[in-house]
Amino acid sequence: MAMPAPSQLIDVAVRRKPADVAIRGGRVFNLITGELLTADVALVGNRIAAVGNDYHGKNEIDARGLTLTPGLTDAHCHIESSLVRPYAWEEAVLRRGVVNAVCDPHELANVCGIPAIEYFRQCAARMILHLQVQIPSCVPALPSEQAGAHLPAADIAPYASAGCALAELMNVPGVLGKDPDTLAKAAAFHKHPIDGHAPGVSPDAINALAAIGVTNDHECSSVAEAVTKLRLGWTLFLRLGSVGRDLKALTSLFSPTLCDRLCLCTDDADPLNIVERGHLDAAVRLAIEAGCDPLAVYRAACLTPARHFGWRNRGLIAPGYAADLLLMPDLAECRAERVFCSGQEVTEARLAERPPEPDYSAFLHTVHGREWNAQDFIPPPPGAVIGVRDGQLLTDVLDWEAAQDDLAIGALIERHGHSGQIGRAWVHGFGLRRGALASTVGHDSHNLCVVGASAADMALAANAVRACGGGFAVACEGTVTACLPLPLGGLMSTGSVAEAADALATLRQAARETGTPLSSPFLSLAFLPLPVIPAARLTLSGYTSVSL
Amino acid sequence: MAMPAPSQLIDVAVRRKPADVAIRGGRVFNLITGELLTADVALVGNRIAAVGNDYHGKNEIDARGLTLTPGLTDAHCHIESSLVRPYAWEEAVLRRGVVNAVCDPHELANVCGIPAIEYFRQCAARMILHLQVQIPSCVPALPSEQAGAHLPAADIAPYASAGCALAELMNVPGVLGKDPDTLAKAAAFHKHPIDGHAPGVSPDAINALAAIGVTNDHECSSVAEAVTKLRLGWTLFLRLGSVGRDLKALTSLFSPTLCDRLCLCTDDADPLNIVERGHLDAAVRLAIEAGCDPLAVYRAACLTPARHFGWRNRGLIAPGYAADLLLMPDLAECRAERVFCSGQEVTEARLAERPPEPDYSAFLHTVHGREWNAQDFIPPPPGAVIGVRDGQLLTDVLDWEAAQDDLAIGALIERHGHSGQIGRAWVHGFGLRRGALASTVGHDSHNLCVVGASAADMALAANAVRACGGGFAVACEGTVTACLPLPLGGLMSTGSVAEAADALATLRQAARETGTPLSSPFLSLAFLPLPVIPAARLTLSGYTSVSL
Repeated sequence: MAMPAPSQLIDVAVRRKPADVAIRGGRVFNLITGELLTADVALVGNRIAAVGNDYHGKNEIDARGLTLTPGLTDAHCHIESSLVRPYAWEEAVLRRGVVNAVCDPHELANVCGIPAIEYFRQCAARMILHLQVQIPSCVPALPSEQAGAHLPAADIAPYASAGCALAELMNVPGVLGKDPDTLAKAAAFHKHPIDGHAPGVSPDAINALAAIGVTNDHECSSVAEAVTKLRLGWTLFLRLGSVGRDLKALTSLFSPTLCDRLCLCTDDADPLNIVERGHLDAAVRLAIEAGCDPLAVYRAACLTPARHFGWRNRGLIAPGYAADLLLMPDLAECRAERVFCSGQEVTEARLAERPPEPDYSAFLHTVHGREWNAQDFIPPPPGAVIGVRDGQLLTDVLDWEAAQDDLAIGALIERHGHSGQIGRAWVHGFGLRRGALASTVGHDSHNLCVVGASAADMALAANAVRACGGGFAVACEGTVTACLPLPLGGLMSTGSVAEAADALATLRQAARETGTPLSSPFLSLAFLPLPVIPAARLTLSGYTSVSL
Repeated sequence: MAMPAPSQLIDVAVRRKPADVAIRGGRVFNLITGELLTADVALVGNRIAAVGNDYHGKNEIDARGLTLTPGLTDAHCHIESSLVRPYAWEEAVLRRGVVNAVCDPHELANVCGIPAIEYFRQCAARMILHLQVQIPSCVPALPSEQAGAHLPAADIAPYASAGCALAELMNVPGVLGKDPDTLAKAAAFHKHPIDGHAPGVSPDAINALAAIGVTNDHECSSVAEAVTKLRLGWTLFLRLGSVGRDLKALTSLFSPTLCDRLCLCTDDADPLNIVERGHLDAAVRLAIEAGCDPLAVYRAACLTPARHFGWRNRGLIAPGYAADLLLMPDLAECRAERVFCSGQEVTEARLAERPPEPDYSAFLHTVHGREWNAQDFIPPPPGAVIGVRDGQLLTDVLDWEAAQDDLAIGALIERHGHSGQIGRAWVHGFGLRRGALASTVGHDSHNLCVVGASAADMALAANAVRACGGGFAVACEGTVTACLPLPLGGLMSTGSVAEAADALATLRQAARETGTPLSSPFLSLAFLPLPVIPAARLTLSGYTSVSL
């Protein structure tokens, strides 16, 4: 819906004219006072014109028996982790009540560079929900990486002039060491709050990051770490995603005193997570179930992110604010029965009215390289072993002898059309008794990761994802037993979240048959190459130890 | 001090280099967590580079035994009410710990128009404290007024492009009635929060004002009124000035839940008030003395206004924030022993280093008209009488018979060089037994107001203020017994706050000798013509009744 003229809003507020939509008789959760007050909410265009008694509209919604809250905000997410395009992601999360999201398209940007950023910005301009696209700050994650793209300060600085903000600044050593390119990025984007990414760093490093414009962090995993960052002025995004589920340990932070510095985020939510547990709504549920004050939780879910990001008219049911509202039977359950976004109810019909989806053909065919064969996956010589931990990003350095109970071959294939290089290393923890897994999702450079008990199955799985333009595959004893094509950059499918969730469930089942006990074997595989998290990683040069 | 380069801040944060200034060993009041934690604060240029233990500097300040708070913010004020120029006002309020202020120069703008706004903006650019100059929205207050200037939307819209915000939108009937000029002003300034002025208006009117961009109000005088406005999303500026002292009735609002929507302001603080009671520091003291939580009060005094106005780096002692700090022995007393603003201590020497004061000669000689004589002040015929209440802006409509115990002649003289018109009316409540008072401060058009028991003394007082280019005067039985020249626009003196306070004390004493029991006779006189507050006013047409 269009922004209404001020005179239209005045006419409705003073009852000279009916609203476009009047949501009548619900209990409005007031995120300022904490009260639940029965009131009508009058909408004109994409705005709330009035909140009060006896407002009527051309279209009237009976909200008796329901509670109204503002829509939810995901303060930090990578849409690519949902394995679907932004249009399909929106369909799933809008139903969950998410009306604002701040995304960092750094996965697709690592594969495709500036066009990836442009694509997300074009999607944002056409989507129903309010998507703020941050500009990736660290592509590639480290200079040594062979990613599909390299985005130095000069390439992204124009987005600062366009009013964009800088996405999570992961290169903490670069900041502390005054790396010129990193400082140039921070300087270019100094007019906007810079997103941080500072797991467990020292107070000195927090001071340094904050002093150059970093204002928030989504990597806290303990209350002590959170309090240190809050004291130094940061806003914290408490995370409940598929990988990082730190929120559980942080619920004691929710208080009236602190909730104006707390937001919620998913960071990485995979499609099974969205379908089975929910999206940001799951975080609200978890926090309230843990005993947190609903006012503090909903402020964090709605109002605080709006204030943090400088969105003056979002996150509150009040006149002049965006007409984004959820109607739900129960605050603690946070399951929206009806969702209004920009003044219109979110329905199949409304979703179908979106402008045509931006062209994504430029992101197809991003898996380069020849047909691979078993010779490409010959075992490396005995040596140090990467120890994978179930459900964690941290890995261990293991001795050859200590790892004999469970050894698999790991391989990383450069797939962006540069060197075609293949690095190999021994991996412990996958528990593979047969077969192989392959993935073109491989943080953050997204080269092709393969792990297997059999070199022949590794070649089979790698060729399977290559054949479908990227994705996940399981091969077992000479057969490809499951495959999820992710043809957009090797990261995203062309289908819906529900379809991706079904495929992921099938893949996990197929992976079980290789013997792996890991709860999310493809997530463990995808993070195997991430070179900025300790202690051992699989790189294009093979085994590498990492310390920060 | 200049903005430091990010690399300088990093070097200090990670202890590679000493700070410019290290304030060591004080107890830092953390406005996020509410803790008082002993820490060093490292300053580089105009910024805080780090807060933590064992920071050292080229210049070290021993803060042991003292508490550190951020500097205070006056969220809404008219500097002209201090009766001195911005440079002189700054000298007084900086000592009181005020480092940020949002001013509306609508008094001088009513006399001198756009050059008045330019003057305040030039002052702001050269002053030490951070002065945000809002653009007056209602000059004159009503279309019927004969002010010195008239500022329609087209004249002020360029300031919106320059990033300015719109000052208190007093014309509530104009908004509700969709007055095109008023709506054009709101539309031009829609990118920034618009200041409100909505004493006691209906919820429908609040909805209408909020829906077109008004975000705050400083006119609440009861908790019920405040809660109504808070529920509808407004931030409230609780006022403790010379006239409006509403804060006393509103202290129960200070809670952790609400304090992120509460600010403090003075609105109008006269020089005697500043010298004797204090400025914004007096509001902090009053609230804490009333039993309010110091965290809630200091948030309202420091952090909430910064967030409301979108100042990302102000109002907190944290890295990256402006180096504005107060060192005080006691939080409840709020008397700063040392004040740091933009990284430098506020001292006589620092004040002397300010750039030359902007030229104000354009604002001299604003009192126009011939020499007045007793014939100009002949009593009006018997009729309705304006009833003045001590210490209030509201007036009463009194019957002629009921007012016989205390009648004075009131006169308002057009003094901007237009008509020279003189309006006369009977006034009750001044208690004058002899003599006359005259003032070129006469809200909001600032025509020359005179009240007296003797027409001859009225002429004498009026000519006395005319002779000095504007100001206040008392005449008694043929002699001018006291006079405070206010030659800048007839509103501000060329001296200091202390000098103005002394002169005002002398004037009040001289006024006592005319018999008036009013606590602030010149304030009562100055508000006698204000045409937007009920119930009876003195206008250029004589007696006028006012209803809203």
